[in-house]
Amino acid sequence: MNFSSKLLENAVAEFARLPGVGQKTALRLVLHLLNQDKADVEKFSSTISKLRNEIQFCKVCHNISDHAVCEICASPKRDKTTICVVEDTRDVMAIQNTNQYNGVYHVLGGLISPMDGIGPSDLQVDTLVERMKENEVKEVIFALSATMEGDTTLFYLHKRLKDFHISISTIARGIAFGGELEYVDEITLGRSIATRVPYEGSLSR
Amino acid sequence: MNFSSKLLENAVAEFARLPGVGQKTALRLVLHLLNQDKADVEKFSSTISKLRNEIQFCKVCHNISDHAVCEICASPKRDKTTICVVEDTRDVMAIQNTNQYNGVYHVLGGLISPMDGIGPSDLQVDTLVERMKENEVKEVIFALSATMEGDTTLFYLHKRLKDFHISISTIARGIAFGGELEYVDEITLGRSIATRVPYEGSLSR
Repeated sequence: MNFSSKLLENAVAEFARLPGVGQKTALRLVLHLLNQDKADVEKFSSTISKLRNEIQFCKVCHNISDHAVCEICASPKRDKTTICVVEDTRDVMAIQNTNQYNGVYHVLGGLISPMDGIGPSDLQVDTLVERMKENEVKEVIFALSATMEGDTTLFYLHKRLKDFHISISTIARGIAFGGELEYVDEITLGRSIATRVPYEGSLSR
Repeated sequence: MNFSSKLLENAVAEFARLPGVGQKTALRLVLHLLNQDKADVEKFSSTISKLRNEIQFCKVCHNISDHAVCEICASPKRDKTTICVVEDTRDVMAIQNTNQYNGVYHVLGGLISPMDGIGPSDLQVDTLVERMKENEVKEVIFALSATMEGDTTLFYLHKRLKDFHISISTIARGIAFGGELEYVDEITLGRSIATRVPYEGSLSR
């Protein structure tokens, strides 16, 4: 693109480096910011800078936090004997929104992906193993994506944890609630038949 | 959404105010920035702040510029007798990319849109009329979107300019190059029949 201004070009280049944002979208966002008040744009810019400089990661579960220990880990109401292992903070938010889980979390910060050069040492794996040793942990629930990377990570972590005396489980896979059978893919449907659960008059939640 | 951090929540809120960016996309962008080096995020933030504070608008054509007069208006190679009237800087870039136009521009900064409360006084209309008086302008070409707002603006500007001794034109409307007839909408097709052009053995560019 031929920009009429170097400042504009630089700003568009910065936005275009964000995931899923191309040159045209970046230009639209930048022109939108140009139409805003100076104070609003200053707030936008300083909020982002502040986020990056002041953000902390909980030293127990490694979730994003404003404090050294996050609210969930610090709460006396949460069950510290159950740890739910997730990929990132979005998964913590998703599970928190279900109101079905009262244990604590462990945020890996990614999944093992040889294709992208991400191995166990890039993730919070050793700290998870440490938590097994130090704490009164009784159960570990893996809530990882049902993808190649998720399954690889699950396999690896199970190997690392299986010698501790804890129960290890993974969240159930099968057809989603509201899912119409004819639209479910074959692998999911096949596995959900193989892993059928007893039915005694009502669906357990 | 339940954010684990106030800093994170603020940053997501700022991104979610951008056009076409919802909460989930905003969160994805913010988490991406959190994974970047501090220096990179600082550069992102300062580039945007700098853009808003230092950007100028050409005092002749009102296009975005780094200087008081933009490169196009300052260039001795451009034909100052022809002015192309456009909505915003994106249109200038699009027309510049065609390499078909050697005149100068006038950027309105928007289109007349009573629904959005945008009237002629919110746009660079008076400065366009001033340019007619002061300069050696011979032709004005309107290159506005073929929408309700574009047509309204065209109608209004024609009324303001028609008493000056200049030729006024608007860019051609019709089927696009590569356009298959069966997919063209009825209004465009109907108008392109009504405004058919003589054919003498070759298509003029």
